[in-house]
Amino acid sequence: MADRAYDLVVRGGTVATAAEVVEADIGILGGRIVALGRNLAAGREEVSAKGLVVTPGGLDPHCHLEELAQDGSVHEESFASGSAAALAGGTTSFICFLPQWKGHSLADSAPGYEARAQKSRCDYSFHQIITDPTPEVLEREIPALIARGVRSLKVFLTYDPLRLDDAQLIRVLAVARRHRAFVTIHAENYDAIGWRIDALLKAGLTDPLQHAWARPPVVEREATHRAIALAEMVDQPVQIFHVSCEEAAEEIARARARGVKVWGETCPQYLTLSHDDLQGPDFAGAKAVCSPALREKGENERVWRRILDGTLDIVSSDHCGFSFATAKRAPGSGGYGMGDANLRPDGTPAFNAIPNGVPGIETRLPVLFSEGVSKGRIDLPHFVRLSSANAAKLFGLEGRKGSLMPGADADLVLWDPDAERTIRNSELHHAIDYTPWEGFAVKGFPSVTIAAGRVAVQGGEVLAQPGAGRFLARGPYAMA
Amino acid sequence: MADRAYDLVVRGGTVATAAEVVEADIGILGGRIVALGRNLAAGREEVSAKGLVVTPGGLDPHCHLEELAQDGSVHEESFASGSAAALAGGTTSFICFLPQWKGHSLADSAPGYEARAQKSRCDYSFHQIITDPTPEVLEREIPALIARGVRSLKVFLTYDPLRLDDAQLIRVLAVARRHRAFVTIHAENYDAIGWRIDALLKAGLTDPLQHAWARPPVVEREATHRAIALAEMVDQPVQIFHVSCEEAAEEIARARARGVKVWGETCPQYLTLSHDDLQGPDFAGAKAVCSPALREKGENERVWRRILDGTLDIVSSDHCGFSFATAKRAPGSGGYGMGDANLRPDGTPAFNAIPNGVPGIETRLPVLFSEGVSKGRIDLPHFVRLSSANAAKLFGLEGRKGSLMPGADADLVLWDPDAERTIRNSELHHAIDYTPWEGFAVKGFPSVTIAAGRVAVQGGEVLAQPGAGRFLARGPYAMA
Amino acid sequence: MADRAYDLVVRGGTVATAAEVVEADIGILGGRIVALGRNLAAGREEVSAKGLVVTPGGLDPHCHLEELAQDGSVHEESFASGSAAALAGGTTSFICFLPQWKGHSLADSAPGYEARAQKSRCDYSFHQIITDPTPEVLEREIPALIARGVRSLKVFLTYDPLRLDDAQLIRVLAVARRHRAFVTIHAENYDAIGWRIDALLKAGLTDPLQHAWARPPVVEREATHRAIALAEMVDQPVQIFHVSCEEAAEEIARARARGVKVWGETCPQYLTLSHDDLQGPDFAGAKAVCSPALREKGENERVWRRILDGTLDIVSSDHCGFSFATAKRAPGSGGYGMGDANLRPDGTPAFNAIPNGVPGIETRLPVLFSEGVSKGRIDLPHFVRLSSANAAKLFGLEGRKGSLMPGADADLVLWDPDAERTIRNSELHHAIDYTPWEGFAVKGFPSVTIAAGRVAVQGGEVLAQPGAGRFLARGPYAMA
Amino acid sequence: MADRAYDLVVRGGTVATAAEVVEADIGILGGRIVALGRNLAAGREEVSAKGLVVTPGGLDPHCHLEELAQDGSVHEESFASGSAAALAGGTTSFICFLPQWKGHSLADSAPGYEARAQKSRCDYSFHQIITDPTPEVLEREIPALIARGVRSLKVFLTYDPLRLDDAQLIRVLAVARRHRAFVTIHAENYDAIGWRIDALLKAGLTDPLQHAWARPPVVEREATHRAIALAEMVDQPVQIFHVSCEEAAEEIARARARGVKVWGETCPQYLTLSHDDLQGPDFAGAKAVCSPALREKGENERVWRRILDGTLDIVSSDHCGFSFATAKRAPGSGGYGMGDANLRPDGTPAFNAIPNGVPGIETRLPVLFSEGVSKGRIDLPHFVRLSSANAAKLFGLEGRKGSLMPGADADLVLWDPDAERTIRNSELHHAIDYTPWEGFAVKGFPSVTIAAGRVAVQGGEVLAQPGAGRFLARGPYAMA
Ligand SMILES: [Zn+2]
Ligand SMILES: [Zn+2]
Ligand SMILES: [Zn+2]
Ligand SMILES: [Zn+2]
Ligand SMILES: [Zn+2]
Ligand SMILES: [Zn+2]
Ligand SMILES: [Zn+2]
Ligand SMILES: [Zn+2]
Repeated sequence: MADRAYDLVVRGGTVATAAEVVEADIGILGGRIVALGRNLAAGREEVSAKGLVVTPGGLDPHCHLEELAQDGSVHEESFASGSAAALAGGTTSFICFLPQWKGHSLADSAPGYEARAQKSRCDYSFHQIITDPTPEVLEREIPALIARGVRSLKVFLTYDPLRLDDAQLIRVLAVARRHRAFVTIHAENYDAIGWRIDALLKAGLTDPLQHAWARPPVVEREATHRAIALAEMVDQPVQIFHVSCEEAAEEIARARARGVKVWGETCPQYLTLSHDDLQGPDFAGAKAVCSPALREKGENERVWRRILDGTLDIVSSDHCGFSFATAKRAPGSGGYGMGDANLRPDGTPAFNAIPNGVPGIETRLPVLFSEGVSKGRIDLPHFVRLSSANAAKLFGLEGRKGSLMPGADADLVLWDPDAERTIRNSELHHAIDYTPWEGFAVKGFPSVTIAAGRVAVQGGEVLAQPGAGRFLARGPYAMA
Repeated sequence: MADRAYDLVVRGGTVATAAEVVEADIGILGGRIVALGRNLAAGREEVSAKGLVVTPGGLDPHCHLEELAQDGSVHEESFASGSAAALAGGTTSFICFLPQWKGHSLADSAPGYEARAQKSRCDYSFHQIITDPTPEVLEREIPALIARGVRSLKVFLTYDPLRLDDAQLIRVLAVARRHRAFVTIHAENYDAIGWRIDALLKAGLTDPLQHAWARPPVVEREATHRAIALAEMVDQPVQIFHVSCEEAAEEIARARARGVKVWGETCPQYLTLSHDDLQGPDFAGAKAVCSPALREKGENERVWRRILDGTLDIVSSDHCGFSFATAKRAPGSGGYGMGDANLRPDGTPAFNAIPNGVPGIETRLPVLFSEGVSKGRIDLPHFVRLSSANAAKLFGLEGRKGSLMPGADADLVLWDPDAERTIRNSELHHAIDYTPWEGFAVKGFPSVTIAAGRVAVQGGEVLAQPGAGRFLARGPYAMA
Repeated sequence: MADRAYDLVVRGGTVATAAEVVEADIGILGGRIVALGRNLAAGREEVSAKGLVVTPGGLDPHCHLEELAQDGSVHEESFASGSAAALAGGTTSFICFLPQWKGHSLADSAPGYEARAQKSRCDYSFHQIITDPTPEVLEREIPALIARGVRSLKVFLTYDPLRLDDAQLIRVLAVARRHRAFVTIHAENYDAIGWRIDALLKAGLTDPLQHAWARPPVVEREATHRAIALAEMVDQPVQIFHVSCEEAAEEIARARARGVKVWGETCPQYLTLSHDDLQGPDFAGAKAVCSPALREKGENERVWRRILDGTLDIVSSDHCGFSFATAKRAPGSGGYGMGDANLRPDGTPAFNAIPNGVPGIETRLPVLFSEGVSKGRIDLPHFVRLSSANAAKLFGLEGRKGSLMPGADADLVLWDPDAERTIRNSELHHAIDYTPWEGFAVKGFPSVTIAAGRVAVQGGEVLAQPGAGRFLARGPYAMA
Repeated sequence: MADRAYDLVVRGGTVATAAEVVEADIGILGGRIVALGRNLAAGREEVSAKGLVVTPGGLDPHCHLEELAQDGSVHEESFASGSAAALAGGTTSFICFLPQWKGHSLADSAPGYEARAQKSRCDYSFHQIITDPTPEVLEREIPALIARGVRSLKVFLTYDPLRLDDAQLIRVLAVARRHRAFVTIHAENYDAIGWRIDALLKAGLTDPLQHAWARPPVVEREATHRAIALAEMVDQPVQIFHVSCEEAAEEIARARARGVKVWGETCPQYLTLSHDDLQGPDFAGAKAVCSPALREKGENERVWRRILDGTLDIVSSDHCGFSFATAKRAPGSGGYGMGDANLRPDGTPAFNAIPNGVPGIETRLPVLFSEGVSKGRIDLPHFVRLSSANAAKLFGLEGRKGSLMPGADADLVLWDPDAERTIRNSELHHAIDYTPWEGFAVKGFPSVTIAAGRVAVQGGEVLAQPGAGRFLARGPYAMA
């Protein structure tokens, strides 16, 4: 008797899981991995992985695509373009956000958003943003969402149209606990930032760099500590999004040491960019405006150290692109704004009116592979954990994503570890007109991306079509 | 030629300063200490300190006397009674609070309060409570106050009628910095307490012990960290009032280690009382309801350790007495309340409607001397620092209070270090009908208290009269 | 075309690797795992793992078998008996010790020892103990050993016949660094223990419990810190053996935080036993005499916490058995002794003359599985890391041991996670006449052990024969 | 009746004690301070302190004067010259060392040394160095010494002729505990330094800078931790001498936090000098060779931070001068040596044969005042604590030295806080031909030094004569 034939065999690669690196073939059938072995039987199709490193496809658990703001504006990055970029960069699934508009129920907010998402070329899921935790939302809508597999809530402690106060946050945490949902948190102190913005504007300091001045590390430390303390009181597991600095990471590490269930995420921008990128002629600093803000140069290494010690265990993109042309032209930020939106004499917006966010869904993994694996900071299993496996556990996709074991979705990336590339926006697939990593040299690049058992990208060409992706109903979190 | 004669010589005592213990006579003239020496010339009056320990008179930098709430209620402890109690317990000066009523200017709040204070038998000063930091208050009233020598502001992060939100706190800190005032902070998270109160009441848990359940250490840790972070952002020195637990103390210690200018105070109740005192028949637990709440038994020693390592450098009374008869009868708390005030079937108030605060202005130093010095935890100079000298520095009375050096106000206490006493409310001088230390045994007790160069208490009899005290205009803080 | 047939298929189990838990069959060919998959083709032989958990076979990186002391004495546990016990307890390979006798070259020490080891029923390797680092040893013998695959050195900072002083330790570390060997360290301060032993004996305190008094946590903390500091100076990776307490673990954690390459191991005795076990009638405490000594009860949980935070990442047995009959009868400890060996009036040895060590090669994994996995402290992947995978990395067996991936040696354990057993020495396979876990209840027990692709234990019967094991030449360490 | 007249009144100064700064006159009678007051009666003599700061005279608890090595060599600095330098620099008493020669009893070592000390111009005391703790020394000589008021022992963990091993150290600690003596420790790891010296010499690296390479911070950290751990085991208070770096200071801070009775001292060289001073043409780096070695530049501020947080509470000179002419000419170090003494081709000694130590008894306080008080790092009371008061407590001179209170020895310094001076060896009073602070600018300088009630230095002229100093029999330590 024989094994049954495979649809596809990825043959002869160096296979990296979250724990090990081995030489093995990977047998795929019906969109899933069914065997890992030496000398597997032939597949109907074969892809050679000779000389390549095979990892699970990336899972980007934090990105913003096609978000609909209450003012009618829509993020420029569509599901079709964003998912193409994801696949080209080795990411085969992502979690983006269902908005809630203040004053609206979840059901009434951003109508049609889920239908738009079906255009994705790769698998996707949602975090539900909560901006208005009315009894209706807390008691009826959230439980219903969770039943549908949207098992994580996202809350903001800052931004005018999004922030929750402490009382609201506590109620969301308590509901999440009752229904075993996970909670992710954008942690910066709203009032402190507001006070600083006012002071800077009053002083006539309006350049993009002042965005960082308005949001110093201490405002991130404060909100991180507060979010953790309130979660500790309620005994609800949480993740702190986009940790940018040692100050916030230290609070996470201390809480973990005393047994609090808290995790931390960071992003490539906090590992590679700095205040330098917020400066430059022709308003160029606006391209690097994101929140939390970029820090001083040395901070990158301090954040790396918190990856190495395990405090930060996921690297997401926080892809949230606004084209530079858009940013330059008119104030407004698709919901991510603070304070009144002022224009400067030359028509560019003051720092507080520049839309917040950088595009990165495509560059996330090449930058992480290059800065991490190729530069010797982390080994391949650590890369797998940071890029997919830990997020899969935390967000209820364990066994399905972030894994190359039998039963997992056949999402794989074949990396050429020796490929040397320079990142150029002209070669990226996203809809944004720039990348903050323009000219950034990387070593190691995805050669082939396989999603759901099919070759989705090869030779730089995105083969997967809009609609190929599936909505991922997720299970409860498991602790990473 | 001879020194000029002294009004009073305290002769032959063991003199303890903030740094040293020596045998010396103390020469007093015109209400001030003018000499410290061996074999001083005779004074017009002499007090023998043979076998006694002479310390500077206590400075209690945190007590509530005769406060006028917006609802017309007045604290039972009057300036006359409270200052008698202070002197009897070895405290020769205190700082209490000028209220601000929400919706009122400072000038309009608690009219006549300063005039009432003139009834004090010993020297006094004020912190100004800020509950409503309007531009008028911030820009005009606070600077005027400071010019009058009221150089410290007190803010609350909890209590319904008193709390400031973060934006208000930041504005107060910024104004304090501009005018070099000090800021003291009651640090507990308002929303977390509110959520817990609701949950407990809903569950029908209404006993005095639940007061502690409603305010667990994590709510104190959180607010302490937040207050410090915002002060750090503004670069304004602050003191955290009444630290009750390691959780809050740890936040102060960590901030100090990174250079933040923050100090911590604790009180005898957090060194000696615990949950045990919140229980008992006939509503007796109500006698120990204060905020922050008493902690579990072992916490006392952890707080002591934070005194020993210097994190907590002042022991105040937070005297805030409400008679048990009052507390039992009717909800209400003279401004220190949270949530709706519910009566229970037997007519006693639910835990959240019990007035907050314990009386302690008279017992503060005997308890501290006994538990600290007599039990060998601290030496005499440390006692002096905790009981007066550090507060004198922090609150702008350096050289005048907390000192036995030439030039200091002649405020002294002659301690009998071997006196063994049992605290009985019947022997106390305050206006409150109980003490939480009823039956508490102490070793070491004030034998004579001298204030402004006159014997104010001798043989348990208070000789100083109402009106003997003077308002202390204070200078800027010096760092302890 | 079909996959080629398997010698053996382990079918239908819940497979736990160092990172994941999946349902999969395991295909074995030529003593190695060659496939992991769903519905693998039939093997020539099949073992059902339905309802069972399949883990990599245990790797016990620290055990003492049949050691030959310089005085001619031999450890009672033979390779044949010890390896039977290992297999019965789910351990399929181990690393024991090549002795060096002081005054002898490595070659001249313990002649015939390696030949004896060939009697092992499962795979084995050696650490080389260095007690006399002469230039000959350092410059010629160690490099030769390393070339043969003995890539780790073991040094003792205590025990009369074994200890190195700092100068010797530094030379060993430097040689290890030059040749990329790993160094493991028994860390206790020799002089401090000696001083304490003298004082206790002088005071007539000779019971087994005094063994613990003679070696308080501070002597372990001190030597741990010193070993780490010297390794840091030389930049040589080291592992601290058998960490028994928070004091030592804290030093490891601190050093790791500053980037020092140091790892920590602990043992089941430090997770479950305590001072209680050092007491009892009829000299029973002697059964629990090991070094470092057992600690006070609460310490077990502190050590667990250091497993959870990653500071301690290997749980070995430190199996070092001396029968109770032997221990009772005559002083002497096969080399693990301190001070003069005194008999007490009743003929039993004083605490310092009781042989050091407890038997545990068979109970290690059942105790760890039960206390760890079944009690919910750790998940299955963590169990795999602690019991085999981390040791495989650190000791140069990565990819071969501690893994279920294609290419790994086919060493597997099928655990019945629901089996409830009480440990009885009468049912164990080791040669020692007692176990310190007599009567200890465990949940989860090995049902089948497979070694090198063959069923080695089934139904409690050890099928593997003496001689079945192979010497494992090891590669350089990889960091866990 | 009148106060009796004073021998001397220091009038009108700003008087700084360990805790306070006040305006006061100081009345002196019979060599002691007898009064502190406003408008004291006239003295037979008067010194105006108008515009000056009056502090207690410095107590330098760590300096080497006229030490007799076993090879017959004698330190160049005599008691007469060293004490003149001390007084000129504001130090009015010091503690130097009674040597023990290995193989000799205390009585037989350095004969005549105590008699030589009588030439001191200011008060002095001794620490007894223990290099050979025989039973005779431990059981008879040390108790006898303590009875004579030599209540502190000094041990070295490094230097060939001086070091104790751990067993010896423990015995010394135990004896000290029994007789309530204090123990001070030179903490560096002997074997690690020896190994490094060999390696550097083998590599032909022999310059003065290599002295620092041979003794990196980790060797100081290690020995500090070890000394503390052994003291903790014995429960004996100790002081770590001359802490040069954060690594060692951190170990002290951690031990204090867990309640260990350990104190730390540092010296001006570790606050102001660095590797830079170990380099320079013409062998100039030899002038800065001391142990522990100078560190990299940034370390100065880290040591300052440990002064500010209280970990380091004494600043001594560790004056141990060897003239540059001597150092240049011939190897040898009066007992402070390591390894064989090699000459280099140009006749200068290799780094390990340069005598260890820098002269600093005269510059200690001006440098500390200037860098500390004048630069705003510390206030005047902190200066007093660091320069005299803390040492007085720790070394059993409380109430007598480091104090300006009645009863204290009349040792005072009148500082001109505005005096700006440049340190020039030509203006110093010591016997050494250089100072490492040549050209160092200071602000604040002693204007008048008074010792035992007499003007000892005025206008830079040393008036006190050899023999004016008295031996100080000391009491038991009090904790600082
Ligand atoms: Zn965000
Ligand atoms: Zn985002
Ligand atoms: Zn309060
Ligand atoms: Zn209060
Ligand atoms: Zn061992
Ligand atoms: Zn062992
Ligand atoms: Zn020294
Ligand atoms: Zn010295």
